[in-house]
Amino acid sequence: MSALFESHRETLERAVSEIHARGYWSAYPEMPSGKIYGESAKDEGEAAFKALLGTTFPLDQPSEGTTGAEASPYGLPLAITYPTAAPGTLIEAANAAATSWAKASVEERVGVCLEALHRLNRQSFLMANAVMHTTGQSFIMAFQAGGAHAQDRGLEAVAYAYEAMTAVPASARWEKPQGKNPPLVLEKTFRIAPRGVGLVIGCSTFPTWNSYSALFANLATGNASIVKPHPMAILPLAITVKTIREVLAEAGFDPNVVLLAADDPDHPVTMDYIASDDVDMIDFTGSATFGATVRAHARGRPVFTEEAGVNPVVITGTDSFKGMCGNLAMSLSLYSGQMCTAPQSLFVPAGGIDTDEGHKSVDEVGEGIAKALDKLLGDTARAMAVLGAVQNPATLKRVAEASGKGRLVRPSAPVEGAGEARTATPAIVAVDAADEAWREECFGPVAFLVTVKDAADGVALAAKSVAEKGAITAALYATDEAVIEAAEDAFAAVGAPLSVNLTGPILVNQSAAFSDYHVTGLNPAGTATLTDLAFVTNRFSVATVRRPVPA
Amino acid sequence: MSALFESHRETLERAVSEIHARGYWSAYPEMPSGKIYGESAKDEGEAAFKALLGTTFPLDQPSEGTTGAEASPYGLPLAITYPTAAPGTLIEAANAAATSWAKASVEERVGVCLEALHRLNRQSFLMANAVMHTTGQSFIMAFQAGGAHAQDRGLEAVAYAYEAMTAVPASARWEKPQGKNPPLVLEKTFRIAPRGVGLVIGCSTFPTWNSYSALFANLATGNASIVKPHPMAILPLAITVKTIREVLAEAGFDPNVVLLAADDPDHPVTMDYIASDDVDMIDFTGSATFGATVRAHARGRPVFTEEAGVNPVVITGTDSFKGMCGNLAMSLSLYSGQMCTAPQSLFVPAGGIDTDEGHKSVDEVGEGIAKALDKLLGDTARAMAVLGAVQNPATLKRVAEASGKGRLVRPSAPVEGAGEARTATPAIVAVDAADEAWREECFGPVAFLVTVKDAADGVALAAKSVAEKGAITAALYATDEAVIEAAEDAFAAVGAPLSVNLTGPILVNQSAAFSDYHVTGLNPAGTATLTDLAFVTNRFSVATVRRPVPA
Repeated sequence: MSALFESHRETLERAVSEIHARGYWSAYPEMPSGKIYGESAKDEGEAAFKALLGTTFPLDQPSEGTTGAEASPYGLPLAITYPTAAPGTLIEAANAAATSWAKASVEERVGVCLEALHRLNRQSFLMANAVMHTTGQSFIMAFQAGGAHAQDRGLEAVAYAYEAMTAVPASARWEKPQGKNPPLVLEKTFRIAPRGVGLVIGCSTFPTWNSYSALFANLATGNASIVKPHPMAILPLAITVKTIREVLAEAGFDPNVVLLAADDPDHPVTMDYIASDDVDMIDFTGSATFGATVRAHARGRPVFTEEAGVNPVVITGTDSFKGMCGNLAMSLSLYSGQMCTAPQSLFVPAGGIDTDEGHKSVDEVGEGIAKALDKLLGDTARAMAVLGAVQNPATLKRVAEASGKGRLVRPSAPVEGAGEARTATPAIVAVDAADEAWREECFGPVAFLVTVKDAADGVALAAKSVAEKGAITAALYATDEAVIEAAEDAFAAVGAPLSVNLTGPILVNQSAAFSDYHVTGLNPAGTATLTDLAFVTNRFSVATVRRPVPA
Repeated sequence: MSALFESHRETLERAVSEIHARGYWSAYPEMPSGKIYGESAKDEGEAAFKALLGTTFPLDQPSEGTTGAEASPYGLPLAITYPTAAPGTLIEAANAAATSWAKASVEERVGVCLEALHRLNRQSFLMANAVMHTTGQSFIMAFQAGGAHAQDRGLEAVAYAYEAMTAVPASARWEKPQGKNPPLVLEKTFRIAPRGVGLVIGCSTFPTWNSYSALFANLATGNASIVKPHPMAILPLAITVKTIREVLAEAGFDPNVVLLAADDPDHPVTMDYIASDDVDMIDFTGSATFGATVRAHARGRPVFTEEAGVNPVVITGTDSFKGMCGNLAMSLSLYSGQMCTAPQSLFVPAGGIDTDEGHKSVDEVGEGIAKALDKLLGDTARAMAVLGAVQNPATLKRVAEASGKGRLVRPSAPVEGAGEARTATPAIVAVDAADEAWREECFGPVAFLVTVKDAADGVALAAKSVAEKGAITAALYATDEAVIEAAEDAFAAVGAPLSVNLTGPILVNQSAAFSDYHVTGLNPAGTATLTDLAFVTNRFSVATVRRPVPA
């Protein structure tokens, strides 16, 4: 029995119980509080981060040089490089490590995962700085989404993997009756047989949250992982890989079970990994364009993707106009619309909507949200805490272009007093249902206010756009239960989780581990769900041995 | 609650318990006995089969004409045609039916599956005739593999689907503590969201056994299915589709949830279905060549395949030479080597092996198996019951060609007195390890006797060939436990289930529902397993609705 497994058994057992309940639960505290993490943790995390600036990241893995060209969206010079090697070198090392890792027991592997998650949790302040200065997230979001919530997603995947693996009995006695004769008897043993080496391709906005499910699912099920970070968000995954490698080595395993495949934008290596026959499955988070490439190269290998979508909000009525506008303002602002769960299209009937503040026209709905945005973002400190910075300069250009595609209800603007940080508040652009602008994903702080015929038309059009372009979330405001019921059916059919009448602090953007299924795989937004059984079951198979037993 | 579900609840509950135990269990009796199926069942089944000859099969589905060109390997004229329609017509009908089927409850859908399996079981004699005269299987095999065992595989898939779906809670209360403030509360509902329409592509040798897992997994998880039979083995799946459609209609559902897409060899339609964006997943049994096409067209859709392989037997020693030779003779003969589980390559060390009958050279091992074959197949009636007929004339040509690729230890020959049936006994061809002949799949009654350096070399070479060309089974004869242990590791690593020292009536060919995992997905022989959780979990996702609850 594995000592690491025993020391974290309680956490695992609770996690396994929670994946069946899917109510609220979190194993890792999301508050960056000294009382929880230690009074010195914040300063130590920041110091550890600063000590990395301008250095080569201390990662002891097969290396043939260094690479790295990250730039903080807050303007802080990073100048960190990372050891790297030719794809062939890392693939060979991963395959060698995979062979021994496959032979470790389920408990040993799960024990390593749980200890690594625990250590990552203890480093959450370092991770917060690393995520903040690569993705542009605010500190608090980086701590939560990049730290605790990502760790929760990792644990959730381990729980599903553990459950799926332990559903396979270790042995069975197969005893077939033969009438009056003695039965035929076979002794069978079953062993979890991992696929081999998984490639985990991270994104630039949520490098940990979007990759921990895959990474820990791979590890738990006995597969080695090559972690290919986005070239603009390497540090969070370098810290992750380093931490896991340390746990692996201490537990007596080949640390090459996890490898970092860093590159820089001028010398991309992802295709080399995807094309390799020695990579046995692929997890990908990123654009629909590259997602299509990954899917096209699947060749029968399991491919788990989160790509992009056009998340709709259908507004047909509310009993809290102020609450709705405030909620939507927050949803549009959070991390400057760079969340895969952020709304993009707001559908409002041409005749307006009934609210607790009386009838509101389409224009009045737009103005209500615009005013709520102005209020929310009027204070620099609060604006920065909500918006963070814009990860990629191309996003600013995209927002500017989109702003010209309709009537500008609210312009995007930099946050005053944000210093060197690259910032942008959300734009709202009014368009017609027949326009093309709102139908394509427009990643970043911009929303389209789309006038539709009526509530039914809004739901139908929104659902159609989900089927065509994908969506990871959908929201509805309605006071008529018949409208709500129809929307539930419509969005279920196209695989967009629906949030109804959010007027308080809960946002459509939020996707909680152990409760929310993130991405359904039923529309173009991706092929896999964080996390369900399907996310783990195809990462391993079963090896059988049958031997006859004399009757 | 569904009445059909209730009436078969006991069977389902037992099946769910058995997929965890994976010992011996069968829901459908494999003996074609009048005591079990009714004294008149055999005659009625044969009469029902004969009544279909020369007619258009009575299948009430969207039709734009008829097709069909099956020919019995036993020489019986069939002359059955089947209603057919353009792929677009059937795809549209399936998609329309899928929408309503998705809304049926899990219990309603599972109830329909269980009732359909029950009715198929009652028609096992008709099915045996249908399978026999399309595939060439002997009557007893057609009754067992085409009837009861296929039904067991279908039930097994339903049990996994039921378990995976019921692991998702119908609702959850998400209650997040907020310190001294009231908690945030969301009421969440979760609904099973099927993918839509699955294409199930059958094969010519085991049309029911190899497609029931997929077909019933699709149905149970709320997906419509278009069943595309092999043009030479339509009838067994036509009977299947007809039966399921009847149950669907009686239960008040659109029967187009299941549709038959028959074609003839001169006008193949499979690619039209594979290429369609309105087909959401694909199950395929057939050649590696077409399997590669299916995989290449996956585009992110789930693809479940069973393709081909080169099943090895490594012979390093035995304590029952007679038992071993007899067992292998039976394995090579059963259905004339046309089972995907039949051995193809027999590896024997150059120095020979130790046995209970003394040392045996490579030649003596070959002779031992050849003699056992002669004895087994010496009587026409017994030979026909074991060999059945050869499904495809191309197989005879392949065996003739293979016979020239080495030293012929035993020639293939037609069965004397077999009348019009197309028959062939197994050839044994002795080759060297360096030869190419044994490395490619050679479907049909032919085995290669491969001389290897020693036991370790035999295991290594066999495992390497599995990794390169795929295998669905592997067998080992050894008296040295160290050799057995090494082989267990080697074959686990390449995903071939290993049978050790089979010298009695149990054959390496046999794969029992509820116990044996058929195909691992870890080598080129296929991507999916009959049946594990991975086979069902990716056929559906979860649709979520979240609504805030005032605290």
